[in-house]
Amino acid sequence: MAYDYLDVSGGEGPLYLKLYRSLKTAMETGKLKHGERMPSIRRFCEDLGVSRTTVEAAYQQLCVEGYLKSEPKKGYFVRSGESHTLPEQHRPVPVPILLAAKYRYNLGTDCVDAENVDLTVWRRHVREALNRHESVVSYGDHQGEPELREALSRYAARTRGLSVTPGEVVVGAGSQPLLSLLCGLAGKNRVAIDERGFAQAEQIFRDFGMEIVPLPCDENGLDPAALRKSDVDLAYISPSSPVKSGSAMPTSRRFELIRWAQERDGVLVEDDYNGELRYRARPIPAMRGMAGGSRVAYLGSFSKLLLPSVRIGYMVLPPELLERYRMRARNYNQTASKIEQLALADYITSGQMERRLRRLRKLYATKSQAMGKCLSDIFPGIPFVLEETALYFRMPVQEEEANHLCGLAAEQGVRVRPRQDGKGLSLALSFSGIALPDIPEAVRLLGLAWNKKG
Amino acid sequence: MAYDYLDVSGGEGPLYLKLYRSLKTAMETGKLKHGERMPSIRRFCEDLGVSRTTVEAAYQQLCVEGYLKSEPKKGYFVRSGESHTLPEQHRPVPVPILLAAKYRYNLGTDCVDAENVDLTVWRRHVREALNRHESVVSYGDHQGEPELREALSRYAARTRGLSVTPGEVVVGAGSQPLLSLLCGLAGKNRVAIDERGFAQAEQIFRDFGMEIVPLPCDENGLDPAALRKSDVDLAYISPSSPVKSGSAMPTSRRFELIRWAQERDGVLVEDDYNGELRYRARPIPAMRGMAGGSRVAYLGSFSKLLLPSVRIGYMVLPPELLERYRMRARNYNQTASKIEQLALADYITSGQMERRLRRLRKLYATKSQAMGKCLSDIFPGIPFVLEETALYFRMPVQEEEANHLCGLAAEQGVRVRPRQDGKGLSLALSFSGIALPDIPEAVRLLGLAWNKKG
Repeated sequence: MAYDYLDVSGGEGPLYLKLYRSLKTAMETGKLKHGERMPSIRRFCEDLGVSRTTVEAAYQQLCVEGYLKSEPKKGYFVRSGESHTLPEQHRPVPVPILLAAKYRYNLGTDCVDAENVDLTVWRRHVREALNRHESVVSYGDHQGEPELREALSRYAARTRGLSVTPGEVVVGAGSQPLLSLLCGLAGKNRVAIDERGFAQAEQIFRDFGMEIVPLPCDENGLDPAALRKSDVDLAYISPSSPVKSGSAMPTSRRFELIRWAQERDGVLVEDDYNGELRYRARPIPAMRGMAGGSRVAYLGSFSKLLLPSVRIGYMVLPPELLERYRMRARNYNQTASKIEQLALADYITSGQMERRLRRLRKLYATKSQAMGKCLSDIFPGIPFVLEETALYFRMPVQEEEANHLCGLAAEQGVRVRPRQDGKGLSLALSFSGIALPDIPEAVRLLGLAWNKKG
Repeated sequence: MAYDYLDVSGGEGPLYLKLYRSLKTAMETGKLKHGERMPSIRRFCEDLGVSRTTVEAAYQQLCVEGYLKSEPKKGYFVRSGESHTLPEQHRPVPVPILLAAKYRYNLGTDCVDAENVDLTVWRRHVREALNRHESVVSYGDHQGEPELREALSRYAARTRGLSVTPGEVVVGAGSQPLLSLLCGLAGKNRVAIDERGFAQAEQIFRDFGMEIVPLPCDENGLDPAALRKSDVDLAYISPSSPVKSGSAMPTSRRFELIRWAQERDGVLVEDDYNGELRYRARPIPAMRGMAGGSRVAYLGSFSKLLLPSVRIGYMVLPPELLERYRMRARNYNQTASKIEQLALADYITSGQMERRLRRLRKLYATKSQAMGKCLSDIFPGIPFVLEETALYFRMPVQEEEANHLCGLAAEQGVRVRPRQDGKGLSLALSFSGIALPDIPEAVRLLGLAWNKKG
């Protein structure tokens, strides 16, 4: 076999990088064509006389970037497609992509560790749902599978203090489709949000042509006086997200906001993102469950409780919006997977969700304390903020240093990713994907990486 | 065990109906409470001295209406919940609910027959996706799993004549979330639609506060002259739905509409609902694939090709909307189930989707001919319209006779359901859920039911 498209002589860095660059060029210039099968790793390293690790690392990087596709038991295939043709500014990852193999520790927010995964149990529930003939060959319920809505109404009562019937629960494929539904039902032109912002919710509001009115926060969260002055009658808040003190929004502030909704005949959208996953203190019951909370539209999800690949959320509407929903319910198709809904219903009903929640609370309490301590030991001057339910420490950074710091960490084998959101640019140091015993060493390596620069 | 809540002495009809009514009353008045376990069917019929069929039929009806829940291997449990408390007008089913057991033949549009189901194959693909550790424990791609988008781009090329790269394909949990995305990207205030209407699409447009401009159709579908006069720059059409002639929109009309979009710099939304499932003639290629079709936003789905429980659709955006989408892509979470996306990718890539399509085309051609012939033999005067891709014959009816006709059919053991949509009220006689050899007898029974009334 001829490898005339390969040129690994030039450039900087280790051999695998040269090989990677050379293969990438061959694909971009069409010397390697879409669909073409690459030599096996074994054959390639024999032919080139390089180590298996070198070829593996190059292939892996090409896979990550979408140039190669690995098909189990068949081999590696060249992919033409978006990754090559996307203009630079649309590339999905804003930091230099570095080889996963290079990382000893992963502090990215996009992964979960083994202890955070009930893989076997979940698979069993999905398989059982899949085996129910009736379930698979019939259409789903528009509002969500009745058994899931029943399970959710009980779960929400126990973990979040909500008192809702299954008929009040609307299921959807995560918060965004539910928020779209809500926007359609509410038909408002303006929405007030906490000035810190919530990119994905704001996107939906903007899509609906709504004016977003950012309101200032004091140490307890969204300022009710500012809300009164703003003259809106829809407000989106996330009372489980930490306020300036680092805790969830206190009960007194929740009542103040509910009072606003009552006086105004307004609607409060309570995005209870991981509201049940508190480990520093007991969870505060959802606003929807509080006296007068019937003016609250509640949004619940399981992002950090279920597997990352499963996207199911639920919403409890205020009575007048629920009535409007019921009139139109047959016009809205359900978005969440029926099989996964049934699996989730079993998972909740069998008590596994709550067992898992208890386990995770303990685990994340321990991990966050461990990482917090290590960080303050190694970086005494830096004001890390714990994002409790999002499971990471936030470290504010300047635009120009973000990539550089990630690069320095990568050189020490630690994966760190920048995070751009309403609170600005920061590095997110997550403890969700790293095992507890590895935390001290990972932070020590970060110290080596970053302390020498200053 | 005391059955003091039972009173089967009064009322009309067979014993199971009395038993059913009596149990229902006991639940509504709280004599039987939520969560309570019912006697087993065996025990109940022994205790009451009635036949097993009687108890089974009563339990089954209560399950259908949501008063009872059957838990495999555990028994039947009383459910309180929405079904009891819903006001009359919100009850989901507009016809009197009749026992499934009463039906010998099902002409409802909400079911599929055994030949329409690749259950074993689909289960295998889902199981395989579920077993890929990486897939389950990581987040999905915002735009849709790359391997599904790749499979879809090839599938759309082969079956619908589209030429798109995987990077242009956006996946979603059916047409509605995709249409919401499109509305958000397009940001228009008005949309023209075919006067016949499409309830679920219109709901989304209305939710976005858009004015819906219904336009007249001639025998070839939406009238381009009316479209020009309407002064909109967004039009929603479903060129695969039959125009007045009963066929799909002819190619000439498609080109006229594309010309409008080009001249106007407008966007045509092509909802290709089951566009590949033609069996009376060869499918017409999608407008998106036609010369100048880049002004077309293409919506594809698999409602009648996949299992009813699986909801995955895809969209191909016009270039300027695609660019806008890419800028915001990270703000939109994917709605379709990741595992089902991966299963679908395998299903398509392995060639099974197209094999199935070929089988279904033959099957539905035969069934529709058989049913068409039987209908015109038995009801020579009635102008049934074949809804080719929706797999039913439409029979227009007056509001007041719809329920009555369904009831008469039910008495003969045939399940028929009314259908309210933009084309008015009709009875939909579907051949998707009935086996070919049963069609003549089912139609004969309809004749007995309906011809005696006239």
